Amino acid sequence: MHTTAAETVPSTPDARELALMDRYWRAANYLSVGQIYLMDNPLLRRPLLPEHIKPRLLGHWGTTPGLNFIYTHLNRIIRNRDAEIIFICGPGHGGPGMVANTWLEGTYSEIYPAVGADAEGMRKLFRQFSFPGGIPSHAAAETPGSINEGGELGYSLVHAYGAVFDNPGLIAACVIGDGEAETGPLATSWHANKFINPARDGAVLPILHLNGYKIANPTLLARCSDDDLRQLFEGYGYQPIFVEGDEPLDMHRKMIAAFDLAFDAIHEIQRDAAAGVAPKHEVPHWPLIVFRSPKGWTGPKEVDGKKVEGFWRAHQVPVAGCRENDAHRKILEGWLRSYHPEELFDAEGRLKDDLRQLAPAGARRMGANPHANGGLLRKALRTPAIGDYQVTVSRRGGIQAESTKIFSEYLRDIFRLNADNANFRLFGPDETASNRLSSVFEATHRVWMEEIKPYDEQLATDGRVMEVLSEHLCQGWLEGYLLTGRHGVFTCYEAFIHIVDSMFNQHAKWLKVSRALPWRRPISSLNYLLSSHVWRQDHNGYSHQDPGFMDLVANKKADIVRIYLPPDANTLLWVGDHCLNTYDRINVIVAGKQPEPQWLPLDEAVKHCESGMGIWRWAGNEDGRTPPDVVMACAGDVPTMETLAAVELLRRHVPALRIRVVNVVDLLALQSPESHPHGRPDNVFDALFTPDRPVIFAFHGYPVLIHRLTYQRKNHDNIHVHGFMEEGTTTTPFDMAVLNQLDRFHLAISAIERVPGLKAQQPAAAALALFRAKLDEHYHYVREHGDDLPEVRDWQWQEIHRPV
Amino acid sequence: MHTTAAETVPSTPDARELALMDRYWRAANYLSVGQIYLMDNPLLRRPLLPEHIKPRLLGHWGTTPGLNFIYTHLNRIIRNRDAEIIFICGPGHGGPGMVANTWLEGTYSEIYPAVGADAEGMRKLFRQFSFPGGIPSHAAAETPGSINEGGELGYSLVHAYGAVFDNPGLIAACVIGDGEAETGPLATSWHANKFINPARDGAVLPILHLNGYKIANPTLLARCSDDDLRQLFEGYGYQPIFVEGDEPLDMHRKMIAAFDLAFDAIHEIQRDAAAGVAPKHEVPHWPLIVFRSPKGWTGPKEVDGKKVEGFWRAHQVPVAGCRENDAHRKILEGWLRSYHPEELFDAEGRLKDDLRQLAPAGARRMGANPHANGGLLRKALRTPAIGDYQVTVSRRGGIQAESTKIFSEYLRDIFRLNADNANFRLFGPDETASNRLSSVFEATHRVWMEEIKPYDEQLATDGRVMEVLSEHLCQGWLEGYLLTGRHGVFTCYEAFIHIVDSMFNQHAKWLKVSRALPWRRPISSLNYLLSSHVWRQDHNGYSHQDPGFMDLVANKKADIVRIYLPPDANTLLWVGDHCLNTYDRINVIVAGKQPEPQWLPLDEAVKHCESGMGIWRWAGNEDGRTPPDVVMACAGDVPTMETLAAVELLRRHVPALRIRVVNVVDLLALQSPESHPHGRPDNVFDALFTPDRPVIFAFHGYPVLIHRLTYQRKNHDNIHVHGFMEEGTTTTPFDMAVLNQLDRFHLAISAIERVPGLKAQQPAAAALALFRAKLDEHYHYVREHGDDLPEVRDWQWQEIHRPV
Repeated sequence: MHTTAAETVPSTPDARELALMDRYWRAANYLSVGQIYLMDNPLLRRPLLPEHIKPRLLGHWGTTPGLNFIYTHLNRIIRNRDAEIIFICGPGHGGPGMVANTWLEGTYSEIYPAVGADAEGMRKLFRQFSFPGGIPSHAAAETPGSINEGGELGYSLVHAYGAVFDNPGLIAACVIGDGEAETGPLATSWHANKFINPARDGAVLPILHLNGYKIANPTLLARCSDDDLRQLFEGYGYQPIFVEGDEPLDMHRKMIAAFDLAFDAIHEIQRDAAAGVAPKHEVPHWPLIVFRSPKGWTGPKEVDGKKVEGFWRAHQVPVAGCRENDAHRKILEGWLRSYHPEELFDAEGRLKDDLRQLAPAGARRMGANPHANGGLLRKALRTPAIGDYQVTVSRRGGIQAESTKIFSEYLRDIFRLNADNANFRLFGPDETASNRLSSVFEATHRVWMEEIKPYDEQLATDGRVMEVLSEHLCQGWLEGYLLTGRHGVFTCYEAFIHIVDSMFNQHAKWLKVSRALPWRRPISSLNYLLSSHVWRQDHNGYSHQDPGFMDLVANKKADIVRIYLPPDANTLLWVGDHCLNTYDRINVIVAGKQPEPQWLPLDEAVKHCESGMGIWRWAGNEDGRTPPDVVMACAGDVPTMETLAAVELLRRHVPALRIRVVNVVDLLALQSPESHPHGRPDNVFDALFTPDRPVIFAFHGYPVLIHRLTYQRKNHDNIHVHGFMEEGTTTTPFDMAVLNQLDRFHLAISAIERVPGLKAQQPAAAALALFRAKLDEHYHYVREHGDDLPEVRDWQWQEIHRPV
Repeated sequence: MHTTAAETVPSTPDARELALMDRYWRAANYLSVGQIYLMDNPLLRRPLLPEHIKPRLLGHWGTTPGLNFIYTHLNRIIRNRDAEIIFICGPGHGGPGMVANTWLEGTYSEIYPAVGADAEGMRKLFRQFSFPGGIPSHAAAETPGSINEGGELGYSLVHAYGAVFDNPGLIAACVIGDGEAETGPLATSWHANKFINPARDGAVLPILHLNGYKIANPTLLARCSDDDLRQLFEGYGYQPIFVEGDEPLDMHRKMIAAFDLAFDAIHEIQRDAAAGVAPKHEVPHWPLIVFRSPKGWTGPKEVDGKKVEGFWRAHQVPVAGCRENDAHRKILEGWLRSYHPEELFDAEGRLKDDLRQLAPAGARRMGANPHANGGLLRKALRTPAIGDYQVTVSRRGGIQAESTKIFSEYLRDIFRLNADNANFRLFGPDETASNRLSSVFEATHRVWMEEIKPYDEQLATDGRVMEVLSEHLCQGWLEGYLLTGRHGVFTCYEAFIHIVDSMFNQHAKWLKVSRALPWRRPISSLNYLLSSHVWRQDHNGYSHQDPGFMDLVANKKADIVRIYLPPDANTLLWVGDHCLNTYDRINVIVAGKQPEPQWLPLDEAVKHCESGMGIWRWAGNEDGRTPPDVVMACAGDVPTMETLAAVELLRRHVPALRIRVVNVVDLLALQSPESHPHGRPDNVFDALFTPDRPVIFAFHGYPVLIHRLTYQRKNHDNIHVHGFMEEGTTTTPFDMAVLNQLDRFHLAISAIERVPGLKAQQPAAAALALFRAKLDEHYHYVREHGDDLPEVRDWQWQEIHRPV
């Protein structure tokens, strides 16, 4: 079972333990330098020759000795307290540190048996680092024990918090570099303490690693006084504990004291919460370590007369050109030998026995902790039958529903079904209600640890809806939650999901790499539900109107990404349920929240979604023998509605025109099977879109996305896409469509104009004139009355409004 | 001339002044409510009828009374101290507030004469708000005095700081909503105080507006105690001043005292700095106002028995359905009348004379301050002749240069030439040196206001290179600097520019709207120099490899965006110089920093860049009479080098093959003139790329971008793009190209395979076998030696390595 932090506080360590810890740290440092520099002679049993040194020296030394120091001390805490700790390495570029430590504790060789725990293994360990065909220079998916890449910087602390929600036994020790601490996402991540409930969540121990410099500059926080830092972090709601110095034994002593203090404090907060003791502060003041140590600590003090240790020159490779430059090679050799490898490794190159005891055992080792390979712990989500929530569609278009509201009843029951596993959360920037998902509040509330006033609604310390006005926090929490084996959904206004474009990119990269590592078990997919989308942010205007996230998503590896545009509530139910049952993917669902006409009964919705795209025969008027004159295609709820209205207009006014309606739910099905696993072969595509008839494609996003997905199809030159043309403002919903030529009239006009010879004939010519007049009428009416034409607002579905 | 803050501190205002201020505030509140609700009967001289009310009620009331309160008090400060203040409206959705206040002070009607300062003007003012064909609901480009849209939230404070750099007379009063304060960018923006030099910059007065709630939730900071907030902001380095309450007159008194204190403090800091008085703190502790007032202050207390004022229900439209619901209409009418419009406006509907005196005069009015319409103040950048920096290319490929290093000499001289105007800065996340731009440090240093240690390099309190490890701050500062009429460049690692995707989107939207407003004068373009790009982040690995920003950029309005991929140093010089001389655009330049072969002497570079794309005859071997067998196209420095090497391979091994080389510098020139102002007509495109020959296109980014730009061209089906296939890791530069099939061997193979019938013939078949063998050899060599094949690393340019 889970243990909370310390049960016993051991007495101050004796000189022997200190010496052992220092040797262990030296071993990690030795292995780190070795990785950056050496391709042979790993134990320096021969003099260092040019050919032992890698031709390209790549890696980041500066932060690494500090990381190694912290790792060594966390090992002590784990052993002494049987604590369950994962290590979040904010300075992910200090990759050699995590690799070195997991090799020392044995997990590296267990996961990668080719890299054994002996001299030959050490040679391979060194050689593979930053080496073609080897491992990357950063802590990454390949690194045992990591759930944070750390290359981009900014997300370590939010990942740590995401990892410990609903994980009462877990402590995430999170090292934050002082460079990373300057980023926006990290600066607001400190506030995540206000979402930790000590009675049911684990704890985060932030360790702010002030080593003073970024690539070529001091850092802002390192040049703040301890007084300023104390105020800042107390203001954020932490108890800061300072550790500062550069003399190793002195620093070991200070770090032991600081860690004991911190883990005692964590234990006390958790113990009191478990016992129901009234807390001193509503939000407990969790401990935080401020760790000041020199950049490139224990490395060369100077190279070529220039300051290196304790300065930014130690950031990457402190001494370069060691193959060619004898003096530099001498510095390197002296540096390596300063760790006395002969005192650290035995004759076979194994870590000496007395040092091996310093690592925790089994799954307590941070490289082997299953929380850092969350798929090992993942329990399948219990999902209800979607039939229980279906909208009954007896007349197509004859009923209106808010898709996300229907879906939220399904989500509510997910909370209920999985309550005892406590492994599902909903994340969003204060938009759960705005996105019409309030039904979930029947099952759970928003987490709120600060004061709750008597008139507040749907706030609770044990809620599982996470709201904060930071898309970065929502995304990062969910990533941390998923990477530790749980499930979740991020709901967001469509336009503002661009705020986390880069986090999305990095998570997609993580998944791509993870999927190629058999030891990384699958994790649940990252599900986005984007509502309040471009076509229905008519009240908030242009800043809230942007459908471009799909373009970004489509750039990623096809194995990873899916994009769904369910046109109504029943299709959203199928899509949402499907996504929640997938793993190792990123699913993007774009769905409206406004009342909209419903088209498909559930059984049809299921079949349609399973196909990904298909012909809606009930909407068109093909005779089934000859090809249609025109294909009206659509993807997205508003484009579908406008397309169906356009089809009605055409059927009413140009009755001889043979129309096919194709709806696309699974956007990437438009591609070929070679391009995407959901892609459809040419014959299927041609059977839907015809090889030669004009296709008027009404699309939710930027038109180019359809072109790039279909440019290799036979009929591509004949696909005419209407979509977002970057015309936005505060106006009516229908006017938004008109501004971007996505409305029924423009679509109907486009159809008539694209069918060869049609526009010159009657009744098409008259219809064309009528539709243009309607656009003109709309233009004046909407500016006069501030509302849409009554015939549009209260559109009567006639042709397709009939019993199913 | 500029004035610094207060010269005199006026005594406490008398009851008459308080009463006047309160009436002025009521006038602003009345006009705000009117905008949200009314389309007629603006002065309520008749009873309120359903038809006076807009059919769609859109707007955000909650934050607006607080904004109006602050604006009223800033007017007082401006009048009393002749201060030059701009108003940054973080809660931009409180748009009615800025519109109301600029109408009251007269600027609105001056800029938009159709909306006069009388009753008919008021009717139009109300009607146009959130109305089709009218103005948006947020403070936006259309709003006089605004440089911040505020729809997305997060950027107000960074814009404020950007505005005051090098503007010693200016104070940016920046209202930050407590929702916005939860975002990452805002959380780190507080640290921007560490970059303000009081002797040469203006000042920012942050006003944290705690009204307690977001859309449907409390805010984190509003539920912190004053003690916690004091510690937090003192820790950030500010002096917080608290104003809290809900009784209007009491609040006026408190606000007057707080503002006097704050502006005195600003004055004192600036006066001491000007006098050279040694500061108490290295970074002055600037004042900051914490302003707690009820959300929806002065609005309905309750509606339908539910709490509204002081709660999140006041966020948007506090009382809905006022057309249909008589009781609600009554609440609305009572609410409007509670401001006593008859005491505020005269018979013609003009603001009464005694109130008019409360607004400042002329350009001191915040709606008329030229800093908020920066184009008015913009002085053209002085740019040196690029010839002074050119690389002499006497043998193509025979010289290596680091493009960004050459360009940085040009940038250095920009600093020198414009030193007396103090209107140019360089922004970057700690990457100026890493991107090889260190020559700028010969002219200026990095700004650093915290302690400078004796061994620090290139730091100074008066530097104009802005480095902080936050792309959000870099982008936001530059936006603020440009919007107030200055010039700048943002240099960034290519992959990490995605961090500001959403800020880029919003700035592009701002520019699109501004360009349609004749009164908004052009501002300098936002220039990105993206270096350390995808192909040369081989040392940092996959997290640092992403060329997708170009895809995002290409989605924006063609008028606004440009993308340049200069293949060498002389082309970068032309492109950089060109971009710095443009306005109202966003220019993206992607250029390498590593030593790379140089191709074009300056005169050729100029001609080539002016054309945007062109044939490099010296690289191909066409006979000039018949079309080539294959076109080898390229865009980007590494793709160009690999293409030219592929051409060399082909010319050596398949000498009969007629090859054309086309290089593209101005990426969007690939489009048609209808799609982009730089687009080229079909006949030009066909003349370059042929109507029917295979095109092997080596591209810097994701291949789909080329397809989407060219899908309408005749030869499109024959364009085969090699680009980033999402394969990245830490490896050698050439191996990165191979992993993505962008290397010379893959390109040469592709050319042979795409020329009909060629691969079956000799010597092409033998060449194909040779190139495949070379790829195999590379695969093994690089994994064995950790470096590229010597023949690749030390490639000897033969065919094209000849005198120019």
